[in-house]
Formats: sequence, structure tokens, C-alpha cells
Amino acid sequence: MEEIEVHERKKVKLNKPVLIEGLPGVGNVGKLVAEHIIQELEAEPIVEIYSCHFPPQVLVNENGTVHLCKNEIYAWKSKKQDLLIVSGDQQSVTNEGHYIISEKMLDLAQQYGVSRIYTLGGYGIGQLVERQTVLGAANDAELVDEMKKYGVEFREEEPGGNIVGASGLLLGLGKLRGIPAVCLLGLTSGYLVDPKSAQAVLKILTQALNLKIDMQALENRAEEMEKVVGRLKEMEQAQTPRRREEELGYIR
Amino acid sequence: MEEIEVHERKKVKLNKPVLIEGLPGVGNVGKLVAEHIIQELEAEPIVEIYSCHFPPQVLVNENGTVHLCKNEIYAWKSKKQDLLIVSGDQQSVTNEGHYIISEKMLDLAQQYGVSRIYTLGGYGIGQLVERQTVLGAANDAELVDEMKKYGVEFREEEPGGNIVGASGLLLGLGKLRGIPAVCLLGLTSGYLVDPKSAQAVLKILTQALNLKIDMQALENRAEEMEKVVGRLKEMEQAQTPRRREEELGYIR
Amino acid sequence: MEEIEVHERKKVKLNKPVLIEGLPGVGNVGKLVAEHIIQELEAEPIVEIYSCHFPPQVLVNENGTVHLCKNEIYAWKSKKQDLLIVSGDQQSVTNEGHYIISEKMLDLAQQYGVSRIYTLGGYGIGQLVERQTVLGAANDAELVDEMKKYGVEFREEEPGGNIVGASGLLLGLGKLRGIPAVCLLGLTSGYLVDPKSAQAVLKILTQALNLKIDMQALENRAEEMEKVVGRLKEMEQAQTPRRREEELGYIR
Amino acid sequence: MEEIEVHERKKVKLNKPVLIEGLPGVGNVGKLVAEHIIQELEAEPIVEIYSCHFPPQVLVNENGTVHLCKNEIYAWKSKKQDLLIVSGDQQSVTNEGHYIISEKMLDLAQQYGVSRIYTLGGYGIGQLVERQTVLGAANDAELVDEMKKYGVEFREEEPGGNIVGASGLLLGLGKLRGIPAVCLLGLTSGYLVDPKSAQAVLKILTQALNLKIDMQALENRAEEMEKVVGRLKEMEQAQTPRRREEELGYIR
Repeated sequence: MEEIEVHERKKVKLNKPVLIEGLPGVGNVGKLVAEHIIQELEAEPIVEIYSCHFPPQVLVNENGTVHLCKNEIYAWKSKKQDLLIVSGDQQSVTNEGHYIISEKMLDLAQQYGVSRIYTLGGYGIGQLVERQTVLGAANDAELVDEMKKYGVEFREEEPGGNIVGASGLLLGLGKLRGIPAVCLLGLTSGYLVDPKSAQAVLKILTQALNLKIDMQALENRAEEMEKVVGRLKEMEQAQTPRRREEELGYIR
Repeated sequence: MEEIEVHERKKVKLNKPVLIEGLPGVGNVGKLVAEHIIQELEAEPIVEIYSCHFPPQVLVNENGTVHLCKNEIYAWKSKKQDLLIVSGDQQSVTNEGHYIISEKMLDLAQQYGVSRIYTLGGYGIGQLVERQTVLGAANDAELVDEMKKYGVEFREEEPGGNIVGASGLLLGLGKLRGIPAVCLLGLTSGYLVDPKSAQAVLKILTQALNLKIDMQALENRAEEMEKVVGRLKEMEQAQTPRRREEELGYIR
Repeated sequence: MEEIEVHERKKVKLNKPVLIEGLPGVGNVGKLVAEHIIQELEAEPIVEIYSCHFPPQVLVNENGTVHLCKNEIYAWKSKKQDLLIVSGDQQSVTNEGHYIISEKMLDLAQQYGVSRIYTLGGYGIGQLVERQTVLGAANDAELVDEMKKYGVEFREEEPGGNIVGASGLLLGLGKLRGIPAVCLLGLTSGYLVDPKSAQAVLKILTQALNLKIDMQALENRAEEMEKVVGRLKEMEQAQTPRRREEELGYIR
Repeated sequence: MEEIEVHERKKVKLNKPVLIEGLPGVGNVGKLVAEHIIQELEAEPIVEIYSCHFPPQVLVNENGTVHLCKNEIYAWKSKKQDLLIVSGDQQSVTNEGHYIISEKMLDLAQQYGVSRIYTLGGYGIGQLVERQTVLGAANDAELVDEMKKYGVEFREEEPGGNIVGASGLLLGLGKLRGIPAVCLLGLTSGYLVDPKSAQAVLKILTQALNLKIDMQALENRAEEMEKVVGRLKEMEQAQTPRRREEELGYIR
């Protein structure tokens, strides 16, 4: 195994595709969105990426078979807009690996004539999110203005100064290659898988891409999660009075 | 020293051997089985594998001499079924090393015309095991069906979605090379070396390979361990009443 | 991306420049000084250094755009003394990367005909600093004597025996190349960004370089920080009586 | 900087020298012995080893100058027995580096015609040592017998099954090259620099090498340390009664 190994499963010709990256991360927001799009659009897997910078493990499928930890690229062709969608089991676990894998993804994206990149993720705020919000960052000032039109918020002090992993590197390394790229980060607690935050990100993404994607599956997952969150909120409120006292005591 | 160094100690010709991997891991289950087979069958050491991805240490033998940390391949020839058995002192301690070493083992296995791989390990459940169970995963759907016949259990939610280290990678990387491979994981607490779990794995393995291997040595070790486990159970039961109260108190 | 990638943004000719390094570190002292100099002298960015040994992240600028984590070299020409100033977002996060990046900086410095190096940093003492002090170390005994004239203190037991990161390596690797180099470390608590310590370092540096640099911006930041420190001191004093008792109790 | 860089400071011709390795480690025992020998015999520094696998730091000398973190080889010529002595500031901080650096040391040792290797270290037992003891391990069964004559103890269950770092690797890698090598480990608490344990190791080493080395300097350091240890013992005894009660309480 080379440091990175690309297995092309199918050859496709695409017309200036937009690349959407949704790999595992905070609240699993990015991956939830990418996998939802892949499923709803029935996008085709075209490339598998293996690397010794992924964790040394296999994932067990439901039927008892396994597959080696990997990232995948899916393709979707349409009259309006072709798509490349990146998802996968894990991100690199080494520092160098993050760079190597992101560079390879950009190589592949450029081979397909990529016109723009959207990277998706979550931004953990350490508490339950009151109002669904999508923060943005872009590698081009014009893109910042464009994204504001879709309701993406650009805050001076958030997303905390930096974006880590593929969602960040595809913007940074993409800039050095002249590929316009935006990162959309759904606000999330950071404690739970967050399909509701994923919905918020997906809404903005479909507007920006002028695509129609059924949201029911994500909606269902969000509702299930809401019940869990509801219970957590109850527990939190039950504990709050005591906590406040403790805090005061601490400061006194 | 190259990243990986193979020292061939003896040349042998094997007929479509099955490779059995049992390296250190959870409950030391895999290594116990592999070493038991090597001893009972008097398998011959044929290959030593050294690597800068193993811990930088020597192991001290009983007579005061040392040997460098290594993995070894043993061979056993018979009329029915030739075997290659992999065991060793340690697994890789770097992420990349896991891939490099597993790839090298597959290279060697293919040189000997390997027909199938069994990887062995333990699956830690965090509590004492009531009923000896062997969970399975395979890199081929037919193998899953075959293994069910021997009593291997395939559960949707276990082994927890992933298998780490050589036991996982030999399946995942083996799949990319078209080598059928199964992983057998004995349920174990995860806290203790577990010869009883090793026995359960060995029973299934000998059935699958149609081999006869005396189990007395492993039986003896299991009995010794049972005494330790017995004492732990007593201690646990003595504490249980209080614990239950605490737990209730916690939930109330 | 190679292990290290140098992007030359502008060609300049310099006359035996002095290189000043101020990368992030304890109290951010070095970076505060380097950035202050860059701003006050309006030094020009001439080189960007990218590396897979930097954290895999982009930094978000105030306007919502991003840039890939990098180090930069700035140049400033004057009649008296040309300068090269190194600053950046981060230092290497791998052990090897520290060496690779420092070696590359020395390569570049030598291409510009560097005559001497000043590396800047903070020395954390774990408590509030009573008297602003700058400790020194040099890769040449004559430089030690020269620096003492400017008030740099050289103590037998401090800076604790070693200097970590670029500030240390540029001295150590520089020595092997015969480039004279000094490290100036401002005493700092180690808990807070410390513009006051940065001022102390800057004063000595400007004396040594016979440069005039307005300090107002750093002064303002130091004053703001003083208020924070003032409050911390109050809190510390309020707690001190009780602490002393506890300590005595511990020793009794 | 290559992964490892060897700077030859002086050419010497040696007659079948014995190599003594004493790098930093448990109780600093090995380094104390090596440095004592270097000083007493006035051995000459002949080789400096630099590597990006050492910590990225410089060490500050007493006069305010610095040197890059390194390992060094010293040579000593005599009618009876030539010596090569390895000491240094640090050992590798990466897994691969340990192998790379030990291999390089063996390359150099073989260039000088090394006849045998002694590696020195401490073996931490987690409590104050009652009786000074030196444990051994060797890469050759004959060497085990020879060392027993000098009072080295070879225990079945100690040194705990493995020896980590250069002291272990020089034995293990040396064995693969056919260089006889012994490891001498002074029993030590593991909490303190232990010149007394170093004395015990040195006594055996000088017997084995038939060398005379004045021990006063080490004796003095041991006496100073004894005072510290004495105070620790007093404190320990003062606390013991209470501790016993606590322990009983815990088991009840």
C-alpha cells in the first residue's frame, strides 16, 4: 500500500462539477448531509481512496462482511449541475495524512474539471443550539458575499479562527490552486450526532446549487434526535438551580 | 533497518496453506490460540519479521538472553491441510506500520500460495462473559454463511462496527487482493488474559479446518484463570447490593 | 504538497540582513514582537512557507475568507540595517517537522546573505512576573558578552536548560552552519498573552539593532492586559492567606 | 538535516574496542556511569550524532551558549582495552528514530571494529532499593554465564520481560549482526537520579573490563543523594502507620 491508493471503480465524464465534501466530524453534520444527498440522488460511487493514514481497521457491514476503512467519491450527472460528492468512514489520523489526502482529492477533482467546492461540517458550541445557524468561510471574498445571500452567517470571531481537517484544507489548498471553495458549518452542541443541524446546512446548499432534494429521511432522524435532546433539556433544567448555587459559591 | 525486514529462516514448499493470525490483542485470545497450535502441531518457524514500527525493545527470555521484538511465521505440513501461523511479541505501534506490516504478511502469504486466512482475536465486553461466544466477520458473503455452520455468530451491532489491527487489516487488505478471510473474535471481559475464550475460538477453528488438536494445555490455563475469575465474581457479588443502590440513587 | 513548500511572493535584494524570528509560543511573546515590528516598519511579505507538519487547518480572516496555516518571511530595507522577519500562524506539530522547517528557514536566510539571527520567545515561570527581565542564550560565546551590554541576563540555571522549537533550533542548527544567533526570552507567567514581556524584549532588540520603532501599539495592548493582570493579582492576594495555611498544614 | 547526521570530529584507530552505552533513562543510571567514565579516563569526543528524531531543542550550557540536542561517541585508548563510550542529551522521541539511531551507532561501532557492547541503564522498582543489585540480559547465552561471575543477577521475571530504548536495541539489533552485547541494569527506585545504583553498575563494569576507575566523584554524588533519600525514608516511615490503616480499611 502506497501512502495513498486510488481505486477507480467507474469512468465518468462530468461537466464542470461542483464537489461536495462531507466527512465525519463534529456532530457528524457534514457526513449526514453528504450521505443524504448520495442516497436521495442515487449518486454513483466512482472512486475509492485507501491510505495508511486512515485508522488501521475494517468496518463491519450489516451482513457480517467487512470493508477496509476508506473515503469515497460519488458522481451525479444532471442537466443543470453535475456533482462530485466525497464521503467516507474516517478522516486521516496523522497530521501529514490530512494534507496528503486533501491534495489527492483536489488532484482528482481537477481531473473531473471541478468548478467549485463546498465543504460541510459542524461547529460545536458546547451547549444546545437555540436557533439553527450555518456559519461560513470561503477562500475568495466574492464567495463570501454570494453565500450571505443564502443566509450563511460570517462572524468575525467564529468559527473560532480555524477550520480543521478536510473541510479546512480543501479551502486552503484549493486557494493555492485557484479553485473557489466555501465551507458551511452548522452550529451544533458538539455532544450528539445532529441531523437537525445537517438539515440547516442542506437547505442552504440546495439553494446555492439550485437543487431539489427530498428531506424526509433527514427530517425523520432529526425528530428521533429531538426526543433525546428533549430529555437532555429536562435533565439540564432539573439540575440548573443547584448548579447556579454552586457557581455563586465558587465565585464568592 | 528498512521499515520492515524479513528474515527467511527456512525454505518450505506448501500446498495451498491456510494462514492463521494470532497476534497480541484484547484478552490475548488470538495469541493464545496461535501459540497453542504452534506448540501442539510442532509447527516450524520459517520467517521472522522485524520493523521500526514495532516498539523499540528487546524481550528477555527465561535464560537471560534477549531477542528483538518481532513477528514470526510458522509452517506446518500435513496430508489434509498445510498451515501458516503468524504470531509475535507485539503489533505495530504506529498507524502506518499496521498497514505496512499487514501488506508484507499478505505478500509472504501469497508467495506460499495461501488459500484462505483466519485472523483471531478477542472482543472485550467490559464484564465477565456468561456464555462463551465467538463472533465473526468475513471479507466475503459466502464465508459468512459457511462460518455460521460452525457456530460463529454474526451480529448486526457487534463487533462494534470495526476490527482494529492485523486481524482487521488482513481481511480488508486481503479483500483488495481477492484472498478470502475470516475473523474469529472470542467474547472476553477485556480485563484478563482469557484462555477460556481462546478455547472457544480454537474449537471453531479446528472444526472449520477439520483438524485435531489436543486442548489440554489450554484447558489447564483456563482452569487456573477460572480460579482468579471465581474470586473476582465473589468480590463483585459482595459489592453488588451496594452498587445497585448507588445506581438507583444516580438515576432517581 | 511536498513536506515543505516555499512560495516566493516577491524578489528582493538585501544587504547582510539580520533575521528576527517570532513565532507563536509561551505568552506569545515572540510573535507579538515580530508582528509589531512588521507593522511599524511596514515590512513586505516576500516568502510563504507551507508544510504538512503544520496543523491541518485554515485560519479564518476577519472578512470571512481563509488562508492555509503558514509561516511567512517579511523583508525590510534601510540604510543602516536590512531585516528579515519570520512570523506565522503556528509552529510544526511533528518532531521531524521542527527540524525540516528550521533548516529550510536557514537555507532561505543564507540565500539572502543573513549576517545574524535573533530568535524571540517567552520563558514561563508559572507566576506573575515582578520585574520585567529578558533572558538570553547564544550559539557563540562572544555574542553572550555582547548581549550582556544590552541588559540581557544569562543565568546558569535558566532558561531551564533547554529552548524548544524554532527559537532553539535556529540557534543550534545555525551553529552547525556558522551563523551567529541569539535567543531573547522575555520572562512571563506562561498563562497569558504577554505584551509587557514583548515590550521588554523589543526594547533590547531595538538597542542591539540600533533601530527606532514606535512602541505605542504594544504599550496599549500591555495596558489592557495590565488590567486583567491587576484583577488576577487581587484574586490571588484574597486567596493567599488561606493558601499559606494549607501549605503549612501540608508540610507539618 | 537528514534523518540522522553524523559529524566526525576526530579520526582515531582503535583495537577491538568495547562499546559502552549510557544514555538518559530510568534513574539516569546509564548516563551517570558513562559520563563518569568519560571524565575519569579523559576520553576524547570523536563523533557527534544529530537527528530530527531527537527533541527539537537546544541545551543551554553554563556560560550561556547552546548546543543542539545530540548523542556523542567518545574514544579511549589504552594498552589493555580500547573503549568507545556513547552518551548524550536525549534518546529518540519517535518510535522509528530509536531503530534508526541504534542502527547508525552499530554501523559506527563496526567501523571501529567493536568486539563487544555493554549497555547501561536503571531498572525502576517503584520503591527505595534496600540492597544494591545489578540485573543483566545478554544477546548470547555464553555472555550470561560470564556475567554471573561478576555478580550480575539474571532473574526469570525481571527486568520485567523487556528492555526499552537504545539499551535494548543495541542488544537486539547487535544480535542480528553477530555482535555480543550485555545490558547491565542497576536496581533503582525510578523516582530519583540514582548515583548509588550507578556505582553498583560501574563496579561490575570495571571488573568485567579489568579497568581501574576512581569512584570518588560518583561517591560524592551518591552521598548527597543519600541525604535526600534519608529524608524521604523518614517521611515514608512517619506516614506508614496511617497508610496501613487506610489499606486495611480499603480491603475490609
